Amino acid sequence: MRLGILISGRGSNFEAIANSISRGKLDAEIAIVISNRPGAKGLEIATARGIPAKCIPSRGLDREEYDKLLIEELKANEVELVCLAGFMRLLSANFIKAFPNRVLNIHPSLLPAFPGLDGQKQALDYGVKIAGCTVHFVDEFLDSGPIVLQSAVPVLDDDDVDSLSARILAQEHATYSQAIQLIAEERVVIEGRKVRILPERAA
Amino acid sequence: MRLGILISGRGSNFEAIANSISRGKLDAEIAIVISNRPGAKGLEIATARGIPAKCIPSRGLDREEYDKLLIEELKANEVELVCLAGFMRLLSANFIKAFPNRVLNIHPSLLPAFPGLDGQKQALDYGVKIAGCTVHFVDEFLDSGPIVLQSAVPVLDDDDVDSLSARILAQEHATYSQAIQLIAEERVVIEGRKVRILPERAA
Repeated sequence: MRLGILISGRGSNFEAIANSISRGKLDAEIAIVISNRPGAKGLEIATARGIPAKCIPSRGLDREEYDKLLIEELKANEVELVCLAGFMRLLSANFIKAFPNRVLNIHPSLLPAFPGLDGQKQALDYGVKIAGCTVHFVDEFLDSGPIVLQSAVPVLDDDDVDSLSARILAQEHATYSQAIQLIAEERVVIEGRKVRILPERAA
Repeated sequence: MRLGILISGRGSNFEAIANSISRGKLDAEIAIVISNRPGAKGLEIATARGIPAKCIPSRGLDREEYDKLLIEELKANEVELVCLAGFMRLLSANFIKAFPNRVLNIHPSLLPAFPGLDGQKQALDYGVKIAGCTVHFVDEFLDSGPIVLQSAVPVLDDDDVDSLSARILAQEHATYSQAIQLIAEERVVIEGRKVRILPERAA
């Protein structure tokens, strides 16, 4: 399965996916990493690892114009699954239509709690005792879309944003690769808002 | 610690609290069970167990009038902690003032997700993969207030409302007693929206 990964910064989830692939835990290959921001650290990391990487700057373009460029580049690279990894833009309906049920995101909260920016800080400010992360299919709305997997972590009384973020991030890295692998194995079925995970096939 | 338990129906969490006390797992006693609805099953259960129980019907009374009656009855019974167990009413600011930081509720979701009625059905309809329950202090708003404890459970692909509710309810019963015990041990400190749990005291 050919992955296209969209980033805006470091994209630590991109690195985690690349690691899962190189360790043989994920049957996929990264066809291309695209950043909408020049100088994104993730582009360097990709290049250093020999993974095709490209910046398509979004500045000055409206959403439809930009998404058209993205779609072209992803299609040219025969991408089958688009994975957002800290990509700081909403995608247009046309983009979603170009990759129906083929765009994934990971969010650092147990959605629908704490959508949007700084999910970890939102969780701390609210005072929850359990936080986590969510891998979900992407639709045109913010952190919406059917949920593939979630993973919970405890919030400790002395947590700050950094310590909680680190605990969640470890789960993000594991959970994102696991979700992509389930899709690669064709075990993920979307039924309305619900995602059913089919059992492993007998060998 | 003398508990006053407010119910509107069966109040299965009331029974769980009573069981924790009779098993010696919870250092508290139930001073009174009050239902706002005549014929609430929990009143019978209380009476059968020799626990003082009373119906104070809410029908026809406005919130302030009704809450005044509740406060009187709870104070007359020297209640130190008020525990809501399926009590289907919002409490007035005056009630909260009468028992400052001394009113607890349990809700069948990982708040702030899925407040209000039918938290379990809301979770299923949204398609989350992790659900749970929340013990929180009560303020004048719905399922708001600082969180003492939360407990997570998985949502299974074949869950219906009954199966998910049963899984959550088992956690509710354990978590509610645990939270009350922490308060009895004076280990619960409210700091703004956050609740800090102090370590067990050395023997």
